[in-house]
Amino acid sequence: MIMHHLSEYGLSAAKLLVEEGLNAVVLEARDRVGGRTFTARNKETKWVDLGGAYIGPTQNRILRLAKEYGIKTYKVNEQESLVHYVKGKSYPFKGPFPPMWNPLAVLDYNNLWRTLDDMGKEIPREAPWRAPHAQEWDSMTMQQLFDKILWTSAARHFATLFVNVNVTSEPHEVSALWFLWYVKQCGGTMRIFSTTNGGQERKFLGGSSQISECMAKELGDRVKMKRAVYSIDQSKDLVEVKTLNDEVYKAKYVIVAIPPSLNLKIHFNPEMPPLRNQLIHRVPMGSVIKCMMYYRENFWRKKGFCGTMVIEDEEAPIGLTLDDTKPDESVPCIMGFILSRKCRKLCELTKEERKRRICEIYSRVLGSQEALHPVHYEEKNWCEEEYSGGCYTAYFPPGILTQFGKVLREPVSRLFFAGTETATEWSGYMEGAVQAGERASREILCAMGKISRSEIWQSEAESIDVPALPFATTFWERNLPSVGGLLKFMGVSTFLSAVTAAGLVACKKGLLPRW
Amino acid sequence: MIMHHLSEYGLSAAKLLVEEGLNAVVLEARDRVGGRTFTARNKETKWVDLGGAYIGPTQNRILRLAKEYGIKTYKVNEQESLVHYVKGKSYPFKGPFPPMWNPLAVLDYNNLWRTLDDMGKEIPREAPWRAPHAQEWDSMTMQQLFDKILWTSAARHFATLFVNVNVTSEPHEVSALWFLWYVKQCGGTMRIFSTTNGGQERKFLGGSSQISECMAKELGDRVKMKRAVYSIDQSKDLVEVKTLNDEVYKAKYVIVAIPPSLNLKIHFNPEMPPLRNQLIHRVPMGSVIKCMMYYRENFWRKKGFCGTMVIEDEEAPIGLTLDDTKPDESVPCIMGFILSRKCRKLCELTKEERKRRICEIYSRVLGSQEALHPVHYEEKNWCEEEYSGGCYTAYFPPGILTQFGKVLREPVSRLFFAGTETATEWSGYMEGAVQAGERASREILCAMGKISRSEIWQSEAESIDVPALPFATTFWERNLPSVGGLLKFMGVSTFLSAVTAAGLVACKKGLLPRW
Repeated sequence: MIMHHLSEYGLSAAKLLVEEGLNAVVLEARDRVGGRTFTARNKETKWVDLGGAYIGPTQNRILRLAKEYGIKTYKVNEQESLVHYVKGKSYPFKGPFPPMWNPLAVLDYNNLWRTLDDMGKEIPREAPWRAPHAQEWDSMTMQQLFDKILWTSAARHFATLFVNVNVTSEPHEVSALWFLWYVKQCGGTMRIFSTTNGGQERKFLGGSSQISECMAKELGDRVKMKRAVYSIDQSKDLVEVKTLNDEVYKAKYVIVAIPPSLNLKIHFNPEMPPLRNQLIHRVPMGSVIKCMMYYRENFWRKKGFCGTMVIEDEEAPIGLTLDDTKPDESVPCIMGFILSRKCRKLCELTKEERKRRICEIYSRVLGSQEALHPVHYEEKNWCEEEYSGGCYTAYFPPGILTQFGKVLREPVSRLFFAGTETATEWSGYMEGAVQAGERASREILCAMGKISRSEIWQSEAESIDVPALPFATTFWERNLPSVGGLLKFMGVSTFLSAVTAAGLVACKKGLLPRW
Repeated sequence: MIMHHLSEYGLSAAKLLVEEGLNAVVLEARDRVGGRTFTARNKETKWVDLGGAYIGPTQNRILRLAKEYGIKTYKVNEQESLVHYVKGKSYPFKGPFPPMWNPLAVLDYNNLWRTLDDMGKEIPREAPWRAPHAQEWDSMTMQQLFDKILWTSAARHFATLFVNVNVTSEPHEVSALWFLWYVKQCGGTMRIFSTTNGGQERKFLGGSSQISECMAKELGDRVKMKRAVYSIDQSKDLVEVKTLNDEVYKAKYVIVAIPPSLNLKIHFNPEMPPLRNQLIHRVPMGSVIKCMMYYRENFWRKKGFCGTMVIEDEEAPIGLTLDDTKPDESVPCIMGFILSRKCRKLCELTKEERKRRICEIYSRVLGSQEALHPVHYEEKNWCEEEYSGGCYTAYFPPGILTQFGKVLREPVSRLFFAGTETATEWSGYMEGAVQAGERASREILCAMGKISRSEIWQSEAESIDVPALPFATTFWERNLPSVGGLLKFMGVSTFLSAVTAAGLVACKKGLLPRW
């Protein structure tokens, strides 16, 4: 029994199999476990999560694992005001989303979240390609959906940042069906974007890699480091797996717990079936640099800011920040993401230059000179990692989910597929990685006749320590019209206003032929 | 000096280097040369091109190579009428494009080709990301461009087929900037789509793989088969290249002559730079099954059809056919492509079932029972090939060309990049593969100080045997208004008609908010 592990939590698959009394080996490409989680330790930071770090309510599998190993969580600081920086000015606010002031923007913005969540409700989390409008939504990008439903530039800019932050890619790069599915399977727009009661509520005390490290310790010498796999041969009695350091492993079954497109690192014999062979060329990883700026004091809290900044400014390197100070208030730090298009542009600068530009924008947003004088800086550009390909996760460009999605986790003979991309709850997160690893292990148990088919997929009890609160919507959130709806309503009253509205549409959407 | 070769015409790079007196080795993943060209030989077909086959005027490099080896070309039969099958009926026609009958469709159709070519003129073939509207055009899919400029469903359907045929993918999958560039660097809409005077004018007598085979023969035991490369190490004095059969090759320079996304098959030390590491996850290969149906007689010619069918029918497996009878009129045959979405759907059927469905549509289009009784059938599904990933070539989804295009052929230390995807003339074709291979070889000669930087890129003299004729446009083609232009013109005459037009736009484009 062999596990192939480049990504985080191939370990969780091995753990389950070993607990069932089976023999498992984990082949890890790197010289460390954890994959896209990576806790570095040094005297300046004590510890720092350079990769995946945040967990929150409804992520019950990863919380269960952490509890088993006695790893504590703590809440990301959101005591003071968040701040929204737009058109060169800072606006403090409370709650998950920055408020809008222009009345049309309020309608537009309200309708945006409502629409994304309503569309999400139509999409089955385990088979988004079967949604009633799958074909139509997969043929358009999120940019096209925004162009259709949004009327104000305020909402359009924030919508772009919402995509950048959640999937480290651009609205015009991703399928609308895929992005709507992604938000839905995280629990909706509020759950995915919130700190309190959402995906960024907490971090692990001591760093997220501890979970992988504890699993690896438990598995002992079953975990083999620096064993990048380059060949899998299923033509013989046992599956043969070859590693770069010239070892050959033989197993009855293999779990491939890596991002779909990194399957291309492996030469398969026999070749993959046609749809899978093409799928793995079609699901790129997002682009992000995670940046931690360390200061002598957390001066922002003294000014009434919690450390969360939502930054809309094409020239600013960072799109979103969170306080990254330790829970005992030591090691004051702000974590910020360089996202998508900005990542691709700024990855060619030196580390020093990125640091300088980040401090400048923090200084402007927080209105503080102190931001210009950090005591330390850490960053991790995930685009340079050969064995991740990018972070946080894979995205689906238009047209791919409906045509290739169904083979994403379909076993190929004795190969089974894990990795967070194959999950149906919090895919793209640590939680999804655990769900996928455990599911793939149970697929093997099922193939061995040890459990029945109906036992492969299992739900998880809610964490006692990190319970989820429902997100209540107000009467107004449910019933305010969209801008389009408002214009339509005005339209029925007089013919002329309808004409104006139609003209406005044609003009706004840039439909007057230009070429 | 080592060449890594999975794709056609890494050989052309080696040939040039050997002619310059250098030492070169070609490592070929398969047990045959030719890559995406593949000439099979058997008694039923004599020979058949299962992959790349067509050449035409302006493809002067591949014609030069063919001439050097004494390989003759012949014209694809286009003597009799072509046939356009639409809404269940067959319409014979002459010329490259099927004509339209509805006057609005005529305007729409004329404006489509004119617009694609005019936009193409703004795009530099060697740096499409520097086009004046690069950002804007790369943020939209071809589907979006069609939605903007087309008014009739006739033109919209044909435009979809035009994308399917040329790049084996869907309008909603590809970047508009990339597709416009692709058509432009082939010489425009007429050149790329035409048989006579275009990209499908001719085939090689005896099959296209002969060129690779002749080069391989010339290179002798420098060409090593079944040597799939899985590792390239640039950390030592010489570059070390490892193959699946456990050999190690050492060289001063390496040319990687494979599609960009197949670079992922190789583990690199050191890792690729961040942009290249991400580029190779973002450029999938198209989807196509090439199908040859053999008959006792070429009954279609007797009915006045040359064998070219342009088929618009969602249920028809085939989108385009060409006569594939041998030039001496032996081995009557029709070649047809199963393209893009249809390929992904039909690749799950049995070969027999595909054959049956193809015969049925040929019978309907040609109005002949004889089409139902083939004597032989050959097909090749390129989606199943691990070392091609698909055919004919890579496509760029929206957003990728502007953000990652510039590193496509940028050397990484001692690695140089060839493969038809890196070409600037007829990229995606055999011609582009030769241009790229020879250019990469001259990059090495330049790195060695044997030639100057200005000698790397070389133009090619026109073939004497296969001259290119200009495509003349008529006064009407240049000056007929678009449908939008016509409505605008009508609009200035009365305010009300402008209102109608605007309303029509809003309605046609599905802009009335639905969600």
